[in-house]
Amino acid sequence: MPGVAARKNQERKRENAMEQPAADDYAKERYGVLPLIQSQDKPDRVLVRVKDLTGEKADEVVWVRGRVHTSRAKGKQCFLVLRQQQFNVQALVAVGDHASKQMVKFAAKESPQQKPISQDDQSPWNELILLPSPCFHGINKESIVDIEGVVRKVPHKIGGCTQQDVELHVQRIYVISLAEPRLPLQLDDAIRPEVDGEEEGRATVNQDTRLDNRVIDLRTCTSQAVFRLQSGICQLFRETLIQKGFVEIQTPKIISAASEGGANVFTVSYFKSNAYLAQSPQLYKQMCICADFDKVFCIGPVFRAEDSNTHRHLTEFVGLDIEMAFNYHYHEVVDEIADTMVQIFKGLQERFQTEIQTVSKQFPCEPFKFLEPTLRLEFPEALAMLREAGVEMGDEDDLSTPSEKLLGRLVKEKYDTDFYILDKYPLAVRPFYTMPDPKNPKTSNSYDMFMRGEEILSGAQRVHDPQLLTERAMHHGIDLEKIKAYIDSFRFGAPPHAGGGIGLERVTMLYLGLSNVRQTSMFPRDPKRLTP
Amino acid sequence: MPGVAARKNQERKRENAMEQPAADDYAKERYGVLPLIQSQDKPDRVLVRVKDLTGEKADEVVWVRGRVHTSRAKGKQCFLVLRQQQFNVQALVAVGDHASKQMVKFAAKESPQQKPISQDDQSPWNELILLPSPCFHGINKESIVDIEGVVRKVPHKIGGCTQQDVELHVQRIYVISLAEPRLPLQLDDAIRPEVDGEEEGRATVNQDTRLDNRVIDLRTCTSQAVFRLQSGICQLFRETLIQKGFVEIQTPKIISAASEGGANVFTVSYFKSNAYLAQSPQLYKQMCICADFDKVFCIGPVFRAEDSNTHRHLTEFVGLDIEMAFNYHYHEVVDEIADTMVQIFKGLQERFQTEIQTVSKQFPCEPFKFLEPTLRLEFPEALAMLREAGVEMGDEDDLSTPSEKLLGRLVKEKYDTDFYILDKYPLAVRPFYTMPDPKNPKTSNSYDMFMRGEEILSGAQRVHDPQLLTERAMHHGIDLEKIKAYIDSFRFGAPPHAGGGIGLERVTMLYLGLSNVRQTSMFPRDPKRLTP
Repeated sequence: MPGVAARKNQERKRENAMEQPAADDYAKERYGVLPLIQSQDKPDRVLVRVKDLTGEKADEVVWVRGRVHTSRAKGKQCFLVLRQQQFNVQALVAVGDHASKQMVKFAAKESPQQKPISQDDQSPWNELILLPSPCFHGINKESIVDIEGVVRKVPHKIGGCTQQDVELHVQRIYVISLAEPRLPLQLDDAIRPEVDGEEEGRATVNQDTRLDNRVIDLRTCTSQAVFRLQSGICQLFRETLIQKGFVEIQTPKIISAASEGGANVFTVSYFKSNAYLAQSPQLYKQMCICADFDKVFCIGPVFRAEDSNTHRHLTEFVGLDIEMAFNYHYHEVVDEIADTMVQIFKGLQERFQTEIQTVSKQFPCEPFKFLEPTLRLEFPEALAMLREAGVEMGDEDDLSTPSEKLLGRLVKEKYDTDFYILDKYPLAVRPFYTMPDPKNPKTSNSYDMFMRGEEILSGAQRVHDPQLLTERAMHHGIDLEKIKAYIDSFRFGAPPHAGGGIGLERVTMLYLGLSNVRQTSMFPRDPKRLTP
Repeated sequence: MPGVAARKNQERKRENAMEQPAADDYAKERYGVLPLIQSQDKPDRVLVRVKDLTGEKADEVVWVRGRVHTSRAKGKQCFLVLRQQQFNVQALVAVGDHASKQMVKFAAKESPQQKPISQDDQSPWNELILLPSPCFHGINKESIVDIEGVVRKVPHKIGGCTQQDVELHVQRIYVISLAEPRLPLQLDDAIRPEVDGEEEGRATVNQDTRLDNRVIDLRTCTSQAVFRLQSGICQLFRETLIQKGFVEIQTPKIISAASEGGANVFTVSYFKSNAYLAQSPQLYKQMCICADFDKVFCIGPVFRAEDSNTHRHLTEFVGLDIEMAFNYHYHEVVDEIADTMVQIFKGLQERFQTEIQTVSKQFPCEPFKFLEPTLRLEFPEALAMLREAGVEMGDEDDLSTPSEKLLGRLVKEKYDTDFYILDKYPLAVRPFYTMPDPKNPKTSNSYDMFMRGEEILSGAQRVHDPQLLTERAMHHGIDLEKIKAYIDSFRFGAPPHAGGGIGLERVTMLYLGLSNVRQTSMFPRDPKRLTP
């Protein structure tokens, strides 16, 4: 009879909460801890969103649900900051007609400054809340409450809140879900900009603490903004491509053989045999092109068993993948991909300005710049720029990460753009399926795209002729038996095609000028982290 | 020097192709096998889409790229059917001013009726095409060609083509990509409706042959329609949810522990330790709710290591997942999900009528019916209907698959809908995290949704109180240590919430009235199939 047990628990909670209120508390029905919401009723009550609490609602009585971000008692008053996602509003419980002294005390969190819970601590949950205890210590921060209040205009703007023109004068306050009293991290610390040296003693939160307690870290206005913007990137990517006539495909992640050779692949136990996790959807995108889908895209996880512990590598990330048949020249595809990126950048500027501003308060950064049409440099031009800047490189060398970054700065200086295409990479540094340049045997029809000097996309015209593909694979020393299915895909008529894969977390990181891809992966996976 | 090698190969191909044309062939520049497209040039040529070849273009000279679907020589003429995705048009090469006898012969496929390649066969590719051979046998079916032709109105509609009012009078024809001469399956066989008993001898293609040669099977108009419609389902799902204020999230697929117990989970080697593939994004969706994202959805792969070999089970499928905080009653969420499904059904009707018609030609089926608002039955009502129909069931038994199907028929008869919600399942048959009904301890706040009598969604209000969650897990005999992280997610204030997961392949299958989920998975994975 778990429903009953739960109700009993809830009643016990309530009794504890009600212990302080004396019989003579004239407000005793106006506050408390409510029973667990198990869908007992369908009350006819509208909950107003915090962001909609503006001067237009002045003097209206409203119900609002939010988290207690802070509470501060001051004589016969208690000031709460009520938070809902990126928005917050001040609420005032003051002794008067609606609120009693006991009600103000209930709203105030009276325990002293909370310490973060260390991992060895016993969870205080049971003692404090669920088992009978001598007193209720007030509403812990991060608890969820329902408040009935009157919207009142304030004479001076309220600095700490997004809703600066009004406050809520509380008439009723009920706890919907009580947080444990000690938080593993403080939200105010988690949104504090890191300032070198200065303002020591003002706490910030390190990355592992954030990631270990991601549910709380994701509640900060910065995290809310980052991931809402990321959702927007996916939406703009798809909107643009669907408008261009692309079809969305779903490609399998469990594969029977590692098509690109076999290094850096995770192995899966598959019933009585073994399988692998796909390092990219490329083979399947290409099969769809050979199957006449003409222009395809997919969004999905990509797995890399690389033991790389850098600011920009994850073992699982989200790939935004494109593949497209073209008529005569792979630049038809390059242009479509570049335009898709431009549409994303424009859409973010137009629809996510609030989120961009929010993030920049914690992580200040120059606005992202781009050109239209996108700047396309050829590899030799980049080489010349780097050499002029003192970098020593051979004609067929790949760019190192520092060279990429330097090149980004040089391009920014010269062309004033944070986004550009680098075309015509040396054939020697690209995978076997890359189409050689017909006019220069050392060059290939391949390209990378960069944001703020870091690679976000790698792509190429693919070899669509089985004979040439075989030759190229042999040249790379690849076991033909392992890629037979791949090569066979092109035997029954294949259109010329090109494509590329974009790393979603990198695009989010670089657009916002953040410094670590773990900030833009909700639940990042790297060689050392598999949780939460 | 692979570029050069490729060119040489192409030249050889061309020489072979050109062997027959004599020096006195006045049309010799007007046909042939072109060199491999390596992006040599950017010709200023517009390729017209086959679907745009209508009477409006009569007498225009156009360039078209398409596959040779069939070719049939008839005296001094050769009729080609040129296919582009779901569309096709007739093209005529006739001896005259533009075409010579040799050119007609080039267009015609003169070899006898092709047998499918058996797996033991040597690939004929090398001998026939790439190495010098005594003669070129014409353009194999499925080859890709560029045709220049005049659009001509025809006096009688052309039955076998989608473009019935016009044909192309060919002036030039060049092979862009030559298919191998023997196809592993014939496209015409692959779209033939299966008729019991009758019309024996008319070949159809069995499922394994289709799946083994998926690149070709996906080219049929039926496959093209199925997967374009599936792309539409994803698009409508997201459009609707984004319009409702949902945020798209990306959840990890590699997880450190199996949250739902551990059965049916694939194991992954993760560096020096083990990890698992997520059976659902549920924990992460719920964490996002606890992190104040309020309404979230995701589309991604879901992995089930079940040794189920049925028409509706896959080991990897695409989950359309929703999770949403609600105010007071989980029906707020049920209504949103049901409305999302209705918007999908309506959108498919409006935007994908051609695709629906195309599929029904091969797989005839009643149009999908639904009510607005969606019918919601409670479990006891369903039980009563089934008992009346003679099924013996206890009050707390789950529905068997045959009972689900029977119920689907009974509901269709009584309410005339192919889509309905079954609400309030017995608590005993649902997972530990399902919220018990506060008014009836044997019942739960959980629901399934059905299309044509088969389950497509399973969902529930989730327990958002750590104490009750602990009790329920213990009741189910679950090791608390393994789900500690899950339970801890709810300790710092959690809103009441509910959600559900939809199987994309099942929705596509049941909407179109197909009989096997492998028809709606591009590259299906089951216990016996990991390729292609």
